Amino acid sequence: GSAPAIVHAQTTLRWRLASSFPKSLDTIFGAADVFAKKVGEMTGGKFQISVHAGGELMPPFGVVDAVKEGTVEIAHTAPYYFHGKDEVFALGCAIPFGLNSRQMTAWMVEGNGLKLMREFYRGYNIINFPGGNTGAQMGGWYRKEVKSLADIKGMKMRIGGFAGRVLERMGGVPQNIPGGEIYQSLEKGTIDAAEWVGPYDDQKLGFNKVAPNYYYPGWWEGGPQLDFYINTKSFDALNPEYKAIVECAAAVAHVDMQAKYDAKNPGALRELVKGGTKLFRFPKDVMDAAFKESMAIYAELGSKNANWKKVYEDYSNFRREQNLWFRFAEAGFDDFMQSQKL
Amino acid sequence: GSAPAIVHAQTTLRWRLASSFPKSLDTIFGAADVFAKKVGEMTGGKFQISVHAGGELMPPFGVVDAVKEGTVEIAHTAPYYFHGKDEVFALGCAIPFGLNSRQMTAWMVEGNGLKLMREFYRGYNIINFPGGNTGAQMGGWYRKEVKSLADIKGMKMRIGGFAGRVLERMGGVPQNIPGGEIYQSLEKGTIDAAEWVGPYDDQKLGFNKVAPNYYYPGWWEGGPQLDFYINTKSFDALNPEYKAIVECAAAVAHVDMQAKYDAKNPGALRELVKGGTKLFRFPKDVMDAAFKESMAIYAELGSKNANWKKVYEDYSNFRREQNLWFRFAEAGFDDFMQSQKL
Repeated sequence: GSAPAIVHAQTTLRWRLASSFPKSLDTIFGAADVFAKKVGEMTGGKFQISVHAGGELMPPFGVVDAVKEGTVEIAHTAPYYFHGKDEVFALGCAIPFGLNSRQMTAWMVEGNGLKLMREFYRGYNIINFPGGNTGAQMGGWYRKEVKSLADIKGMKMRIGGFAGRVLERMGGVPQNIPGGEIYQSLEKGTIDAAEWVGPYDDQKLGFNKVAPNYYYPGWWEGGPQLDFYINTKSFDALNPEYKAIVECAAAVAHVDMQAKYDAKNPGALRELVKGGTKLFRFPKDVMDAAFKESMAIYAELGSKNANWKKVYEDYSNFRREQNLWFRFAEAGFDDFMQSQKL
Repeated sequence: GSAPAIVHAQTTLRWRLASSFPKSLDTIFGAADVFAKKVGEMTGGKFQISVHAGGELMPPFGVVDAVKEGTVEIAHTAPYYFHGKDEVFALGCAIPFGLNSRQMTAWMVEGNGLKLMREFYRGYNIINFPGGNTGAQMGGWYRKEVKSLADIKGMKMRIGGFAGRVLERMGGVPQNIPGGEIYQSLEKGTIDAAEWVGPYDDQKLGFNKVAPNYYYPGWWEGGPQLDFYINTKSFDALNPEYKAIVECAAAVAHVDMQAKYDAKNPGALRELVKGGTKLFRFPKDVMDAAFKESMAIYAELGSKNANWKKVYEDYSNFRREQNLWFRFAEAGFDDFMQSQKL
């Protein structure tokens, strides 16, 4: 027999989430899916969040304005994309020679990070929740080997915004090229190098076929944090239970994304190397020059941007203390393990 | 005027959580508090979990039996305490030369860790949820310097269970001493050395005053995971919303505990060193001997314990791949940062 159609009166809350990422980045885009799924499960489907890939509702980089204006209730993005609005956005994600993944989470959750960033975001009608981290990224694909700092001079490289400022001061030529066009530009030689994320994401785009030299570490992205940006009015309108549910679902996505990258990168790296990719550590003079120029930029920003001065002071103190501690137990353990035949 | 007393009819679910830890360990004990608080917030107080310190309802190491028998619905503990029941418990927490904190989470969440451990725990009527990690611990406090493996021979050391087996094969004499008695034993010279956790927790117990030599890394605890153990009947009786809420609250506790350790250890280490604590890396022959004996134990267990064979095979494959990958971007970034003046 057929069951009778019973329609329950129920209050359903619906939000739209605008991601800055394509569905093909299952790791990063996937974090928004995980978040929405958990909110649905915890509320028995009474709080539904539809997840939209970058470009579906608005351009990928339109999400800050959209949340600010309330066009969507929530976005999932990498804050450093918006460093052109204010460099402080980058501090909520990654700056060259910044915090690593665990340190960033510690700054956010137990340091002053979340407090300071939320103060800053108030001007954009945003309340943020950490929503994933990629871990330390790779330093990109190069058509020719980079043997010393001299090889950076005049080098055209596809590289994300804030890091491009550093590369420029090192004599390089940063290029803004959408993800989908990088392969062709590398193949043609329109650019000499390109960075994307790490083995798992990079492999899918096939850069290894046109630029076999793969460098590490990605000094500009030691632990980029993704954020959920929620319109403050939308958040304030939630009942206390839903507020807590949003916070906790974000924590699940935060854990899940880093775990996905950690679990998926090793196999991808193995396949890349088997396919002819050559791994190189950046020469010391390249790292040193990048570090010097980065610190010079941060000092300059301190005298130009009051927001930066305030947040960076706390961030850099935290970074100093973290690196003091991590060099002992953490690095001592990891070093040893990495040198064993396992 | 006084408000009228209105009694709402409401269904309140109450659980008791037995922690294996004293309240003085605010980091570890605190994770259970965070968990219970979030469950309360997400359910508007309708699902209440009271948190009980070790010894309050039962001895600290009685929690597995208590959850198994349903005496309490939930516990928060370090699974390796129960390696005497079955060595597989240790794989869900930490084994000497095991996974680090991030790798452990990746194995749990994206590898086969949670799946395999839950299969194993079914025999104890337990379903587990990761609930924190301390990160790599320090290698303990020594009255005299450890200059080579020869200094381990005959050395009486307070050290946790599984690691004690390794120490014994290296010629050391492992001692089981409750946390509250370690200081006195070290002071009197009844023992030569003792390990506890890391700078933040160790400082509170004052070991530095009686054993100034502080070694790293704690090779037996590269990333110990804490777990929430839930009685399977109690968990199965929850509605789907509460099941998801329990899972997500555990994720918050998981993030929060590692962040607390990362944020609090650096300041404690700084104070300890200021107070005269001397930091030493374990000599290479000590590390090599410990590694060799650990691997020998794991091989022996493989032929004795079918559970171990199954779970360790997956764990050790994952560990090999993780260390392959972490040596590049992660270690390359951390190395450089740790060698800078920040």
